[in-house]
Amino acid sequence: MTAQDKNAIALAEQADQVAKSHGHLVIIGGGEDKQNDMAILKRFVELSGGPGAKIVVITAASSVAVNMWDTYDRAFADLGVTRHSHLHLQSRHDANDDRHIRDVADADGIFMTGGDQKRLLAVIGGTALDTAMHAALKLRGACIGGTSAGASAMSGHMLAQGRAELHPEKGSVSLGAGLGFLHKVVIDQHFSERQRLSRLLSVVAQNPYLQGIGIDEDTALVVERGVGIEVVGQGAVTIVDGRTMSTNVAEIANHETPELIDVRLHLLPAGSKYALPGNSDDDASRGDGPRMPQPLLEFLENITKRNPIS
Amino acid sequence: MTAQDKNAIALAEQADQVAKSHGHLVIIGGGEDKQNDMAILKRFVELSGGPGAKIVVITAASSVAVNMWDTYDRAFADLGVTRHSHLHLQSRHDANDDRHIRDVADADGIFMTGGDQKRLLAVIGGTALDTAMHAALKLRGACIGGTSAGASAMSGHMLAQGRAELHPEKGSVSLGAGLGFLHKVVIDQHFSERQRLSRLLSVVAQNPYLQGIGIDEDTALVVERGVGIEVVGQGAVTIVDGRTMSTNVAEIANHETPELIDVRLHLLPAGSKYALPGNSDDDASRGDGPRMPQPLLEFLENITKRNPIS
Repeated sequence: MTAQDKNAIALAEQADQVAKSHGHLVIIGGGEDKQNDMAILKRFVELSGGPGAKIVVITAASSVAVNMWDTYDRAFADLGVTRHSHLHLQSRHDANDDRHIRDVADADGIFMTGGDQKRLLAVIGGTALDTAMHAALKLRGACIGGTSAGASAMSGHMLAQGRAELHPEKGSVSLGAGLGFLHKVVIDQHFSERQRLSRLLSVVAQNPYLQGIGIDEDTALVVERGVGIEVVGQGAVTIVDGRTMSTNVAEIANHETPELIDVRLHLLPAGSKYALPGNSDDDASRGDGPRMPQPLLEFLENITKRNPIS
Repeated sequence: MTAQDKNAIALAEQADQVAKSHGHLVIIGGGEDKQNDMAILKRFVELSGGPGAKIVVITAASSVAVNMWDTYDRAFADLGVTRHSHLHLQSRHDANDDRHIRDVADADGIFMTGGDQKRLLAVIGGTALDTAMHAALKLRGACIGGTSAGASAMSGHMLAQGRAELHPEKGSVSLGAGLGFLHKVVIDQHFSERQRLSRLLSVVAQNPYLQGIGIDEDTALVVERGVGIEVVGQGAVTIVDGRTMSTNVAEIANHETPELIDVRLHLLPAGSKYALPGNSDDDASRGDGPRMPQPLLEFLENITKRNPIS
């Protein structure tokens, strides 16, 4: 067989894979169960292809990467996974290392742990490994999971830091550049537990271009690209949409509370499941079709969008 | 002068009073400053007619009524008020007593303290004193203030009790019959401080007829009937409007979290001031006229409505 034949076969296999799976994101609000039912990690394994899947765990967000790996090593082993490994990235050099890139290039599931999303992006943002993750998701339909910092890092505009005050506050939250698996959204985690609605509203007030997504602990927003979403776990996903709001945020001083009129708020508890019109099956039919409220449809269309590798 | 003449004069005087003032409500989220700047109590006194106004303090919500009176006695004295008195109502019999009704009938300001709104309603709800309060507000343009329990008691549907959970919960909040100075709303207090958004969403989820109003501590929503609103104090007023939402609340079991799609949320920080179109002056022109967002206009029209004595 010539090299060209091999390439043709590889491409055909790839196309077949893409046809089978659109790729999933499992965006977890932190604190997911790792010892008992493990509903969310179990779903991540299923969407990666089951216990036989090759799963890599990126701990670069964490300052205690080895401990973090120990925890997930045990959890995935308890779920019957045999081909999971630690992608221990300590520098951008590591994230451009061919060996690590090959690990990602044939992974079925890629999981990013918690820690600090700024640390994670400092190590992998814009590296060859970053590109390999996009390729895995978008060309092979791999599953990408992230919890806490690993969840925040998934959007193009990333909530980098900011206090959770009693009220939204101008200038209290700063954004950074995230991995960009999703666009036009910003993700916050530990959402209800740490009372972060004000923080998310602070972002949306100044960045109405972004829809805010707040994910509770032990709760995941599962996105199947091109198809639909589902909320898994114990809590809820809160969405704040300021695209049609009125606000005086441009006129007030820093640290003041803006007036916000007509922010749209959606609360999707665990069990919520929505498919894009035309993609529903019996399980996913709730809210489908003409009955789906327009603001939810718009959210769904954006978050399931199959963005190309940029 | 005949009795008829006297009545005619009294009626003319009454009409004159009504023309001068539409009546105000000062709805306070609890914890208002009573020792330093006292911005909110000062506004209550101003809207009652100033230091010369006759002010009565209803402590019936409280189980420590005399201590409560001591606090407000001092605060109003510090504001230069000389004609303030304690309306010490211990039973419905007291609330039907002519002496107390006369006190309310010629009061310029009526203030309801905190405590328990159910206790307050158990004592004064549906009594002659209740009617006298409505007459004072609606016929003479008196000012009615209420803080904490005294704030919750002002609406027709009153938030009676309910836990503030992390998420909205079906069946977790119970309503009672309040005094009905306002309709189609439900009022919660200590709002941001006690993280009560979920509780208010729980009410709205099951009662989309009611707009939820959450008032922070040391913050007041001041309503001038027929004219407009203003937020005074340190915090903000949060409004949740579920009239156009979609929800599965009817289908889920008690204690489950409902799906809520497209709840409208408004945040009005202290300093916010809105007048009904045609009622603005220079100070109140912000957001007036064609620029006022429709959901806010609808809120404003409802809350400033000059409901008749029923």
